[in-house]
Amino acid sequence: MQLFYYPHLTASTTFEFSEEESKHCIKVLRHQKGDTIQLMDGKGNLAYAMIENDHPKRCSGSIQQVQYFEPSLPYHFHLSIAPTKQHERLDWMLEKAIEMGVHQVSFIHCINSERPKVNLERLHKIAISAIKQSKQYHLPILNEMLSFKEVIEASQAPLKLIAYCPTGQEQSLYSFLKAQPQSIHLLVGPEGDFHPSEVSLAQAKGFNACSLGKNILRTETAALFSIAAAAAVLGQPEKS
Amino acid sequence: MQLFYYPHLTASTTFEFSEEESKHCIKVLRHQKGDTIQLMDGKGNLAYAMIENDHPKRCSGSIQQVQYFEPSLPYHFHLSIAPTKQHERLDWMLEKAIEMGVHQVSFIHCINSERPKVNLERLHKIAISAIKQSKQYHLPILNEMLSFKEVIEASQAPLKLIAYCPTGQEQSLYSFLKAQPQSIHLLVGPEGDFHPSEVSLAQAKGFNACSLGKNILRTETAALFSIAAAAAVLGQPEKS
Repeated sequence: MQLFYYPHLTASTTFEFSEEESKHCIKVLRHQKGDTIQLMDGKGNLAYAMIENDHPKRCSGSIQQVQYFEPSLPYHFHLSIAPTKQHERLDWMLEKAIEMGVHQVSFIHCINSERPKVNLERLHKIAISAIKQSKQYHLPILNEMLSFKEVIEASQAPLKLIAYCPTGQEQSLYSFLKAQPQSIHLLVGPEGDFHPSEVSLAQAKGFNACSLGKNILRTETAALFSIAAAAAVLGQPEKS
Repeated sequence: MQLFYYPHLTASTTFEFSEEESKHCIKVLRHQKGDTIQLMDGKGNLAYAMIENDHPKRCSGSIQQVQYFEPSLPYHFHLSIAPTKQHERLDWMLEKAIEMGVHQVSFIHCINSERPKVNLERLHKIAISAIKQSKQYHLPILNEMLSFKEVIEASQAPLKLIAYCPTGQEQSLYSFLKAQPQSIHLLVGPEGDFHPSEVSLAQAKGFNACSLGKNILRTETAALFSIAAAAAVLGQPEKS
């Protein structure tokens, strides 16, 4: 059954799609009055709904049954990443990160950053598509681009990690994950890596240097590696 | 320093590039007689070399010093995957898998497969580029497309895993990784998942059903998730 994103699900017993969503529903997917569809609000709620007005610009109808789903992962992962130079690498990273499981993504502007801006609207669409695809009902929070310093100073996660090209002295990511943290904030730097002054600043604010292994990973690969490792180690409770 | 792939590194003290590599070296990168470059053979060897003939179609020179590097990961990971419908998703997956660490990739033709063929030459180029990028010196083995049955029957890895959409009864991937296996062969199915008869066949041949968590992962995401998890858990020896 077709699934639509509708953020106002619990505010009313009726829905009315935006012009864009109406077009998608009625013109592209050819839904008609009387069709049942599913709506999700990205906050855990999923509902059956019936189309009552199949207007191609103002499709609306009734919301019939709302069900709440718990988040699929029992921990919180906040990724802060310097956007890659190529849009497509960031897009792809976000899609995969969300499929695997990420709860908050911040974009950071670093000394060696290649991109000063992100298109949040475009990334928001990718996020919606990725949660639909992976059958999750919670949309991650995507934050506007902030400076490295702002991100560091706002961080309140109990486990704070900064991943950068290894000097050989760092603890492995896995050694941190084994302690079963409930909430992780991990920083991934730009193509040219973090500046040493950024690493020092982060460490002064309680971030632990963390190694992702011997292979040199691209920015987007480092992010996915970390998110996958966390989901593998923390995501599935032990079977007895 | 510019790094070139040259598979015949230890056979001689001189090198001679193919027409394509010559063009890349002389025309594109504008190298000249007397320039020092680096050559890698994908088998762990890295060498300094000097260009003696900067002919744009038959560039050649002398190999000066060969150094052997051990593989960066202390275990063996063999991924067998049903190629995705979109080429680009498979290309990305291979690039990322190699960056993170994979030793052998087989392409399998399954009952629900969307693609009966892969372009190994194109994937080989992606593989070379990915090992250069991630500073690895061992090129993974890429195998021709085989039937599901052939791949299953040829498997000799001590730990054999088949990942598919969970029924809730499977052990998690992490529970297998915690036992510190030396060699893993993991199967990832097509967009339409493995057919139940394929799962039964694999289980009869010693493959363990394994869960990658609650989120439904696309084919290429499932592969990356598994490779990242293995690299995180097995890739870095403990620090004392």
